[in-house]
Amino acid sequence: MPRTRFLRASLREVEPYTPGEQPKLPTLTKLNTNENPYPPPASVLRALAELDGDRLRRYPDPVALELRRAAAELYGCAPENVIATNGSDELLRLVLTAFVEPGDAVVLPDVTYSLYETLIAIHGATMTRVPLRPDFSFDEAMVDTAGALMFLCHPNAPTGQPAAPALIEAALERFAGVVVVDEAYADFAERSYASALPRRHDNVIVLRTLSKSYSLAGMRVGVGLADAALIDALMAVKDSYNLDVAAQVTATAALRDQAAHAESLAKIKATRARLTAALRALGLDPLPSQANFVLTRMGSRARARSVWAALRADGILVRYFDRPRVDDCLRISVGADAEIDRLLARLEVHLASAPG
Amino acid sequence: MPRTRFLRASLREVEPYTPGEQPKLPTLTKLNTNENPYPPPASVLRALAELDGDRLRRYPDPVALELRRAAAELYGCAPENVIATNGSDELLRLVLTAFVEPGDAVVLPDVTYSLYETLIAIHGATMTRVPLRPDFSFDEAMVDTAGALMFLCHPNAPTGQPAAPALIEAALERFAGVVVVDEAYADFAERSYASALPRRHDNVIVLRTLSKSYSLAGMRVGVGLADAALIDALMAVKDSYNLDVAAQVTATAALRDQAAHAESLAKIKATRARLTAALRALGLDPLPSQANFVLTRMGSRARARSVWAALRADGILVRYFDRPRVDDCLRISVGADAEIDRLLARLEVHLASAPG
Repeated sequence: MPRTRFLRASLREVEPYTPGEQPKLPTLTKLNTNENPYPPPASVLRALAELDGDRLRRYPDPVALELRRAAAELYGCAPENVIATNGSDELLRLVLTAFVEPGDAVVLPDVTYSLYETLIAIHGATMTRVPLRPDFSFDEAMVDTAGALMFLCHPNAPTGQPAAPALIEAALERFAGVVVVDEAYADFAERSYASALPRRHDNVIVLRTLSKSYSLAGMRVGVGLADAALIDALMAVKDSYNLDVAAQVTATAALRDQAAHAESLAKIKATRARLTAALRALGLDPLPSQANFVLTRMGSRARARSVWAALRADGILVRYFDRPRVDDCLRISVGADAEIDRLLARLEVHLASAPG
Repeated sequence: MPRTRFLRASLREVEPYTPGEQPKLPTLTKLNTNENPYPPPASVLRALAELDGDRLRRYPDPVALELRRAAAELYGCAPENVIATNGSDELLRLVLTAFVEPGDAVVLPDVTYSLYETLIAIHGATMTRVPLRPDFSFDEAMVDTAGALMFLCHPNAPTGQPAAPALIEAALERFAGVVVVDEAYADFAERSYASALPRRHDNVIVLRTLSKSYSLAGMRVGVGLADAALIDALMAVKDSYNLDVAAQVTATAALRDQAAHAESLAKIKATRARLTAALRALGLDPLPSQANFVLTRMGSRARARSVWAALRADGILVRYFDRPRVDDCLRISVGADAEIDRLLARLEVHLASAPG
């Protein structure tokens, strides 16, 4: 943390979250932050264009009712089972604010989305990390671990591996606290728990984001689905006007254009299959992914770092995580076909000269 | 707070913040939430219209550099002295997160903006309230009160009374913690501390919002001005992508169109003078206001409540606060001239039949 004498003591050792780079050069091939390569459909841009000065000068709907209605229709629940937030990042913070006392334990796998750790540290909670199995699947030991909250990312980041129904059911039956099923990438997976679980369990919240599959990373909209009592508590601790009117109308339009969404998903899944096969053909060891990225083992930490740097020098950004278990890997976002072609061509060149 | 068995124990007694009503009926005269009656200028709508699908599908700038540059130019500082947030609400929460340990004391006047109390309670800090003087000016005893943070709203809400330079200087010299000067309404005041203070003191943050004077309540943008060390700490605890791209471009355009801003301010100040004089002519006791609202004493609690309800039945919303010291008052936002005419006409009717 940056130091000022006013910084509260308990934050001094907290490591801030590092998002993937967001450089502005238009010539870059950006395969490092899992953005959707296809722009949102015309229906979304139309919703934005319809905003007039009167909508901008007035406070937005503090409870985002239209957006929550659209999500409720999609997931087969009531608006009372939905909260809409400023990206799912806000929702990850809110579950801590609402359900975790500073000092309480939060259970999470090791490895997973690193923002969880930053938010837990800022909140002053403790972490109980349960290692993934060697094949990067979740270890069921998680569900019998004590804690006020559990983060279960399905499919997991940065591995792309799904959480099996048996694991989820075990967690909902045996874990004592609230189970957060983070489905940021679930539209790209074989299975989603968003419709079924909140109806049957009062101790689960399923998180969704419009940043990835709906091509709206720029608009910062997340959605949570849960029993109405959990939603009420989250609504009570969020900032009153947490979502601006532009975010509300674009997200509502995006959720209502399922034809465009299906088309975008189909393209990304086809490219993901092609990318995975091509990485394998290059002698690498990509994990079969259920997300819009592919994590591939590069053979060694030295090789991963060398190839990452060489691609970067070419203007191709992929993600490297310098932490145990994944430090011999690169994570590649599933971009447009031309971007993936460019990546594969340069990757082949760099692999020939990379250390073993 | 809503009850679920998962709600953390320390939140059970917290009273959620109640924002002013935001009903959607277009025929209402809305003078209850201090929105600007004039839409933002064409330059702002143009910035919104220029957003294309590629801007929406990509993550926004996590540090909002263009917007911070525009604010820095306006207030005569560097972008390093500026943080941009999702409304100044987010910034009010962040100063607690960064500078206040749960259990620490926060000093604030009684009466002031009620959201402070909600945020302090959610954060688990304690409150030390220092009553305003009978004329609603700040009591200098505040500055010698122990605390990690002080909220000083200039001009204060809901009273519209300014904080004098001597009070501010005393606070910055004698108060031990961080002083938050909340200038949400300062563009309507005789004086602002936004340019001078952060240059000379490392223990102050001045808050600004674009919701009121810039007609952008719908877009949720706040700005904080402070010593770079304070800004760094706030940036480290904010959600990574706290401001969507639409909020960033509209706010940047608004700050850069100072001609439109000056025109809007001039109209509102003229209407405020007219409203104040008219209330006085009706036999009421309005406080001279430096904000875009007027708080007027109605003579008694019964009279304030009766007139508030009668206006509401007419479709005219003003704000009533059922809390000691202001429960005999109504707060009226400075709307467009036609809205104020409508209010005054109905007010005259209702005063004739209201209880004494």
